[in-house]
Amino acid sequence: MSDTPPETRGSRETDDDAHEPDAVGRVYLVGSGPGDPDLLTVKARRLLAAADVVLHDKLPGPDVIDLIPEGRGEDVGKRAGGERTAQEYTNERLVELAREGKTVVRLKGGDPFVFGRGGEEAEHLAARGIPFEVVPGVTSAVAGPGVAGIPVTHRDHASSVTFVTGHEDPTKAESAVNWEALAATGGTLVVLMGVGRLPDYVGALRAAGMAPETPVALIERATWPDQRVAVGTLATIVEVRDREGIEPPAITVVGEVAATRERVAEFLENEVNDR
Amino acid sequence: MSDTPPETRGSRETDDDAHEPDAVGRVYLVGSGPGDPDLLTVKARRLLAAADVVLHDKLPGPDVIDLIPEGRGEDVGKRAGGERTAQEYTNERLVELAREGKTVVRLKGGDPFVFGRGGEEAEHLAARGIPFEVVPGVTSAVAGPGVAGIPVTHRDHASSVTFVTGHEDPTKAESAVNWEALAATGGTLVVLMGVGRLPDYVGALRAAGMAPETPVALIERATWPDQRVAVGTLATIVEVRDREGIEPPAITVVGEVAATRERVAEFLENEVNDR
Ligand SMILES: C[S@@+](CC[C@H](N)C(=O)[O-])C[C@H]1O[C@@H](n2cnc3c(N)ncnc32)[C@H](O)[C@@H]1O
Ligand SMILES: C[S@@+](CC[C@H](N)C(=O)[O-])C[C@H]1O[C@@H](n2cnc3c(N)ncnc32)[C@H](O)[C@@H]1O
Repeated sequence: MSDTPPETRGSRETDDDAHEPDAVGRVYLVGSGPGDPDLLTVKARRLLAAADVVLHDKLPGPDVIDLIPEGRGEDVGKRAGGERTAQEYTNERLVELAREGKTVVRLKGGDPFVFGRGGEEAEHLAARGIPFEVVPGVTSAVAGPGVAGIPVTHRDHASSVTFVTGHEDPTKAESAVNWEALAATGGTLVVLMGVGRLPDYVGALRAAGMAPETPVALIERATWPDQRVAVGTLATIVEVRDREGIEPPAITVVGEVAATRERVAEFLENEVNDR
Repeated sequence: MSDTPPETRGSRETDDDAHEPDAVGRVYLVGSGPGDPDLLTVKARRLLAAADVVLHDKLPGPDVIDLIPEGRGEDVGKRAGGERTAQEYTNERLVELAREGKTVVRLKGGDPFVFGRGGEEAEHLAARGIPFEVVPGVTSAVAGPGVAGIPVTHRDHASSVTFVTGHEDPTKAESAVNWEALAATGGTLVVLMGVGRLPDYVGALRAAGMAPETPVALIERATWPDQRVAVGTLATIVEVRDREGIEPPAITVVGEVAATRERVAEFLENEVNDR
């Protein structure tokens, strides 16, 4: 595929006079993977080293953020005050830096297009005529379960897997998430941003007829040095979360596949802490 | 996270006498990403160079397969004849090589646990006492749409995304896929192995009440040098597939997010061929 590393951009621009005035830089929307720097892609690694500026928040995790060269990082995760939201600020900052001719990496945890608001950033850039490239990453929604020994699909247990946000209140009428339909798919459910509202959507899934003994796993800080995994069932997982003190960022896996972990954990060498 | 590269395995085994007799090697279930070697993870790249044997099929694509050192690759993708299926052969071959003390990479297209039968391989290895590690990869289900300018989730259009196999016949009673429930989720649908049966599941989704003008995109050989993208709607996509001659491997994206491509394509620099 067309990979145009910053070093060769000059010559490329000569061939392409359509929408790249010489002065405009380029934005790379880059996925960082779940946190282990070894799970960065080769391309992400190279772009991190070569970028003029790296805009990031905390989700990529400390070990990845440490790879950003001194003085090149800009934390856009938490902005106190100001008229714009963090997202509006980021959108505009990307445009601003590109117009200064900079090579900009927008580094996002996991993959930029999985609940990362990368789509909005892409649209904002395109609307302002800024050339950009998408550099996919390893999403925590697959890798989190994976390193815990849980395949999100399985020939015998799951013909589909759904990633869904756990951030919305399932009891609100305007909730965009249809937990009843999700339960009816019969596939694996992977909930992101789902620690706080765990009781709500567990309740919604049980109300939709999902069996209380359905296996559930929580993977906290997957691939970070302090990764933790906790397992239970739809009936017990809220209690397990509370007892173990599971906190964000974490992934919730609901479905038969979550039980695979038991069958493989003894020989699974990904483990870092308690099983 | 605990990364134990082959070079240091000896010393590690000394500390760990639980289930690793000195002679037993280790198996790495490694995702290759969608095909561009730049989208391999740093870890996958290192393991490919260090492994004694790399078991693979064709899905990782020619450019990745070319990175396997001379004489170390074993193609287990197509086996003619013999008593065992390709999967049974692979399972046993992994055990056999590990018992010879080898460091074995099982290289799988995309992520090993997304429709890759990696779960079965993990269970087979664990049942026979072979230590293994899961090395997640960039799945084509996210990266395929991504490099075509399509975010699988979007704040305004999709609170969930489902990956589903298109391989089953939706008209058969024993089909494990509930297309009606999938349509009712309201989220993005990403169909893998879904070129041949496109007319069947497009029909099932329309019968379930999905609007004929729902945007649909096909991404063929995503990130390969000959990547192609074709777009349409639920009403037109079968005709588009036939006219463009889209063939496997390809990803089908169904949902409002597929229309994002139109809004960003002009400034999206991932493109390799026709838009
Ligand atoms: C805004 S979403 C971004 C997801 C990200 N784009 C991805 O593909 O992984 C944030 C959520 O991702 C999940 N997450 C991200 N990194 C994680 C990790 N290392 N371990 C567990 N969950 C993680 C958590 O559910 C967290 O609440
Ligand atoms: C058996 S599944 C394996 C999926 C793989 N484990 C992954 O995570 O991408 C094979 C299907 O993956 C999809 N696929 C894999 N690589 C692809 C690529 N580079 N472009 C488009 N589709 C791809 C196609 O739908 C193909 O039929």
